[in-house]
Amino acid sequence: MPLLVSPSWAKEGMFTPDQLQQVSGELKEAGIDIAPDALADLTGFPMGAIVSLGNCSASFVSPEGLVVTNHHCARGSVQYNSTADKNYLEDGFLAAKKTDELPAAPGSRVYVTTQVTDITDRIRAGTTDFDPLERFAAVEQRSKDIMAECDKDAGYRCQVANFYGGAQYKLMKRLEVRDVRLVYAPADAIGKYGGDIDNWQWPRHTGDFAFYRAYVAPDGSAADFDEANVPYQPKHHLKVSASGLKDGDFVMAAGYPGSTNRYTLLAEVENTFNWTYPTFAVLLQDWIGAIEDSAPEGSDARVKYESRLAGLNNFEKNLRGQMEGARRVGLVDRRRSREAELANWIADNSARAEYGEAISLLEALSEETAKAARSNFWYNNVSRPQLFSAARRLYRLAKEREKADSEREPGYQDRDMAFFRQRMEVIDRRFDPIVDKAEWALFLKGYLKQPQAERVKEFDSALGLSADTNPEEFPNIVEQYYANTKLGDGNVRLSLMDTTVGQLEASDDPFMQLTVAMYEYDRNLEEESEERKGRSLALRPAYMEAITEWQREHGQLTYPDANSTLRITYGTVLGGSPRDGLAYLPFTTLEGVTAKDTGEDPFNSPARQLELINARDFGPYALDSLNSVPVNFLSDLDSTGGNSGSATLNARAELVGLLFDGTFESVNSDWDFDARTTRTIHVDSRYMLWVMDKVDGANALIEEMDIAQ
Amino acid sequence: MPLLVSPSWAKEGMFTPDQLQQVSGELKEAGIDIAPDALADLTGFPMGAIVSLGNCSASFVSPEGLVVTNHHCARGSVQYNSTADKNYLEDGFLAAKKTDELPAAPGSRVYVTTQVTDITDRIRAGTTDFDPLERFAAVEQRSKDIMAECDKDAGYRCQVANFYGGAQYKLMKRLEVRDVRLVYAPADAIGKYGGDIDNWQWPRHTGDFAFYRAYVAPDGSAADFDEANVPYQPKHHLKVSASGLKDGDFVMAAGYPGSTNRYTLLAEVENTFNWTYPTFAVLLQDWIGAIEDSAPEGSDARVKYESRLAGLNNFEKNLRGQMEGARRVGLVDRRRSREAELANWIADNSARAEYGEAISLLEALSEETAKAARSNFWYNNVSRPQLFSAARRLYRLAKEREKADSEREPGYQDRDMAFFRQRMEVIDRRFDPIVDKAEWALFLKGYLKQPQAERVKEFDSALGLSADTNPEEFPNIVEQYYANTKLGDGNVRLSLMDTTVGQLEASDDPFMQLTVAMYEYDRNLEEESEERKGRSLALRPAYMEAITEWQREHGQLTYPDANSTLRITYGTVLGGSPRDGLAYLPFTTLEGVTAKDTGEDPFNSPARQLELINARDFGPYALDSLNSVPVNFLSDLDSTGGNSGSATLNARAELVGLLFDGTFESVNSDWDFDARTTRTIHVDSRYMLWVMDKVDGANALIEEMDIAQ
Repeated sequence: MPLLVSPSWAKEGMFTPDQLQQVSGELKEAGIDIAPDALADLTGFPMGAIVSLGNCSASFVSPEGLVVTNHHCARGSVQYNSTADKNYLEDGFLAAKKTDELPAAPGSRVYVTTQVTDITDRIRAGTTDFDPLERFAAVEQRSKDIMAECDKDAGYRCQVANFYGGAQYKLMKRLEVRDVRLVYAPADAIGKYGGDIDNWQWPRHTGDFAFYRAYVAPDGSAADFDEANVPYQPKHHLKVSASGLKDGDFVMAAGYPGSTNRYTLLAEVENTFNWTYPTFAVLLQDWIGAIEDSAPEGSDARVKYESRLAGLNNFEKNLRGQMEGARRVGLVDRRRSREAELANWIADNSARAEYGEAISLLEALSEETAKAARSNFWYNNVSRPQLFSAARRLYRLAKEREKADSEREPGYQDRDMAFFRQRMEVIDRRFDPIVDKAEWALFLKGYLKQPQAERVKEFDSALGLSADTNPEEFPNIVEQYYANTKLGDGNVRLSLMDTTVGQLEASDDPFMQLTVAMYEYDRNLEEESEERKGRSLALRPAYMEAITEWQREHGQLTYPDANSTLRITYGTVLGGSPRDGLAYLPFTTLEGVTAKDTGEDPFNSPARQLELINARDFGPYALDSLNSVPVNFLSDLDSTGGNSGSATLNARAELVGLLFDGTFESVNSDWDFDARTTRTIHVDSRYMLWVMDKVDGANALIEEMDIAQ
Repeated sequence: MPLLVSPSWAKEGMFTPDQLQQVSGELKEAGIDIAPDALADLTGFPMGAIVSLGNCSASFVSPEGLVVTNHHCARGSVQYNSTADKNYLEDGFLAAKKTDELPAAPGSRVYVTTQVTDITDRIRAGTTDFDPLERFAAVEQRSKDIMAECDKDAGYRCQVANFYGGAQYKLMKRLEVRDVRLVYAPADAIGKYGGDIDNWQWPRHTGDFAFYRAYVAPDGSAADFDEANVPYQPKHHLKVSASGLKDGDFVMAAGYPGSTNRYTLLAEVENTFNWTYPTFAVLLQDWIGAIEDSAPEGSDARVKYESRLAGLNNFEKNLRGQMEGARRVGLVDRRRSREAELANWIADNSARAEYGEAISLLEALSEETAKAARSNFWYNNVSRPQLFSAARRLYRLAKEREKADSEREPGYQDRDMAFFRQRMEVIDRRFDPIVDKAEWALFLKGYLKQPQAERVKEFDSALGLSADTNPEEFPNIVEQYYANTKLGDGNVRLSLMDTTVGQLEASDDPFMQLTVAMYEYDRNLEEESEERKGRSLALRPAYMEAITEWQREHGQLTYPDANSTLRITYGTVLGGSPRDGLAYLPFTTLEGVTAKDTGEDPFNSPARQLELINARDFGPYALDSLNSVPVNFLSDLDSTGGNSGSATLNARAELVGLLFDGTFESVNSDWDFDARTTRTIHVDSRYMLWVMDKVDGANALIEEMDIAQ
């Protein structure tokens, strides 16, 4: 099979910054041109320039707090500032001067990691002797306490992160910039070119970049939006390369990958790919259908659900990719053989017997967890629609507020209230009762179609259902709930954030009554889940220790699964062969933009752009071997969701692009990194500069940045 | 744009054998290893081995009449011989010895072209002075007379072919082998691997090959099936190469391409791509929907319509490819500029003025033709369903039989009766009244939705429709027709082949009554069409003369549009870049078969095949650079429908594969050959031999052939 093989030194791995010292020899061999040790220094260059936006990655690219990220990461802010008159999604937005910069969407943040502290001992001390529930509670309580202590440093928001399934804990101290402003975003027709059709696809031609600016109080401290605020001055920022990369060049990316499952057991893989994903894929199709039917194209409701639909479609496409990928790489067989090899290694040495015991217990535990997920599948889905979900969150809040702040569940503490309030508010813009009702009816139907024995008797009883309830009455139940609830009113929801448990229990809102009726049952489910998690916290570290030791003996460095903390991945600009007989070329070009253009969304390039391409007005941004400006490129970097917006760096740590997607064949890499087919997609810095220079006239921003020729 | 550019000597062109002498220098430069002149000798080597099956191409590969063609060309014969007990489609078929070979499907023929005679003078003499209708009639009558004269040589079936729009006529004398037997066809899971999903697609992994044997009477003359018949002994047969080709090698193919439109005028291109294709694409979707709705999956009706559905789906995909391709290559602009260049060349020299006049008249004529097609679009479609169509053909037959045989319309002469009868018979296996009714209702609805002014008043009146007919009654009309017709009965249809006009006019069959009522109207339409064709026969030769002279001045050899006569195309084994950022590799491999396999039709390889691949049991058939057996390969040859089964030859004219498809990007090459994206797909002789040797044990056949190592 004619595969384009990666150079031998290209490797999987989302390394924590401190791990890179352990692979400095390989990094040098791969071509890095800065001291690998520099990557471990979070406040030095280049890592001091790398930031998180919460769900996305980003980086500083000027001394005045200019932040570059993906268009799709900043698009919510473009949408937030758009009106019927000023449609920045369609036209793009460019602030002519700083005072024209617009507040980003509520909740937008720039997190600058300033310190990472190993707190494993503080979190784990003594927990091995605890029973599982105690262990879970202790880890949670200690995490909250450590974060609270750290948060005391004003303007910081701290985070405790779990590595290797609980073997290691780190405290991430992050400056939380709260005044974030939109500086520049190209039009959707550039920044979202190809839309959902091209999502996960190669060849790709998306100008997926946009600029924010971080603002702080004049004294340099984090502050809410204020006209008196001044641009944040980062200690370090990245130079932007105008000469970019060519095929085969060294490349690395620094960002915040969200979650991977590289160390799941065979049992977990089998349950996911044989049951969870296929089941959910079917549900998603029905769910998408329910929304589309109840919010017809062109309706106001459809506008409110565009984002949800896009998310569900994306998820559905992702699941298909996961399942196809699993089949293609033979995920189950590969995991089975990895487990067998590990088992042999354990059996080789009686000192490793406890690893074997932990793994056996972990396997049994994963079966239990899977069984619980299966048996509560429909009951859990029933609370997805927004009104029922809001009722549950509000009642839980009232319950939690009966405790001291430090003892409350994460998500219900004072530090969480700004986000909580925002979530209650945002419903107004993303909710329509007809659609919410259709969703609830869909999930309830799924619930009711289960055999009586698999249904939850408390829920049946709270809904007034019995075994012989006339199924024809079921739509009436749904109608009555939506006719009588007041939770569709944003003011009602916000006011309920300040009520007591007693008041909520006296409420005549049907969703609140249902919530109250199910509270005990739900807490029991939660406690069962916490008990399992508590067991896992003891077992998984042992399993990961076995993996780490075993891999070390084979010359491999075990990196932790992604957990939304800062990681670095390195490799090569590299095309690939996604399938026999087909090759991905490593770069796309401006001419490819024109070739895809139909004049209709999502392939409706601005006329000016097409003219420039037609005139071959490349400026200094062309790559000779392409005889054009590169638009997007492929690499063999190891990335996943959350990496969006990650600074893509050359050997000198100059910004040569932004990571924004993976190919469809890479989706499954969350479970199993297949070096043959995993490819990450980047927008090329030359295209970014070409668009800024030639199409959008964002020359002042180019001036502001340090451009490396 | 990083295109894989063809070598300079690769060129478009479906050359007639005699033209190759004019490009012998280029053929030698391209690497041919036999004397180019040999290709002009139809009875010598290698052309004496090249045959036609009517709709497909094929070639002799043994001295005992063994014929190799595509699986999809022989599949009708596999189906014809299959029963519930012996499902050769599923299991494949291999005759252990000659006496086990099975009769091919009725109507199967092997045509061996033995002589080509230029008859231009005989056909065209004096016709320039005729008026258009006379000219059309004269050409048709002379063609029939010449064919009749030629057919007198027993066992031959002759054909008059029109080249360059009527500038040249040739008589093709063809031995018509009527006893054709099925020798070997791999299972659908090899021969049709990928099915409709992979149709027109690359990467491809289809083992699209099968073997027939031609039989003749013991005296060597063509004869109907008879056990006493003996294998035909061709003067020449091809050696089959076991070493095949590699990337960049010279390759050529000889076969019978059906039809192309390379010399259509801008006006014709615009009408086709702006009106005909888009209109038909919509109709096709409705049509497919009507069949699928009325013949649900799993029903007996669906079985009968599988082939029609496959054809319509294929057609629909083809139309989409045509339209996408036209947009991609900028067909309209390219044709416009070609026409402008030609016009300039004509204007350069007053002696060329008559070319200009002919082209102007041709443009006006093409507008007229397009207008007629548009105004009769729905009326013409209404006669597509099988019962109405059968009535029209039967009545026409009775009408034609009132004339002397030589004066009848082509298709209604005695020489056509075997095929006519067969077409009447075959309806039984491909017809269901519910579906036929649904089709008729669909077309009638389209007809009725037209403004009254655009409807045909004779047809309205024959159907009993008036301007104020209650549209609700229209389904009743359809019901009544199908309730009262007897034409669904095969015996009735066959018996009507022998009735008189008077008897048919007295028939109470509603479809026959409708046919009789419309006959005069239809003949008028036909006469109008013939009048236009008569004009074209005078104008188009002048236009083609201009093209030929103009191209000659630019060093180009003008080849005629495809017309189902023997052609040769040559070029290179070559991958391509169908789109920016994507490349087609030139070969696919056995491992790609496994990678596509899902275990479900159409990706359900035989278990034995998957085991052999897994064991890397390649035998002597691997290509070292692939480290596997090549399955399919790409070339830049110029081909179209009808080329299926064409012998693909190396420089020594050894068979290295069979041409069987084009890529989706190539579909538009019927209108405009775009060397950048046009690629033809072949099954590799090494895969054919590997399947025969390793999977199906067809070693006796391998023995029978001359294998070139």
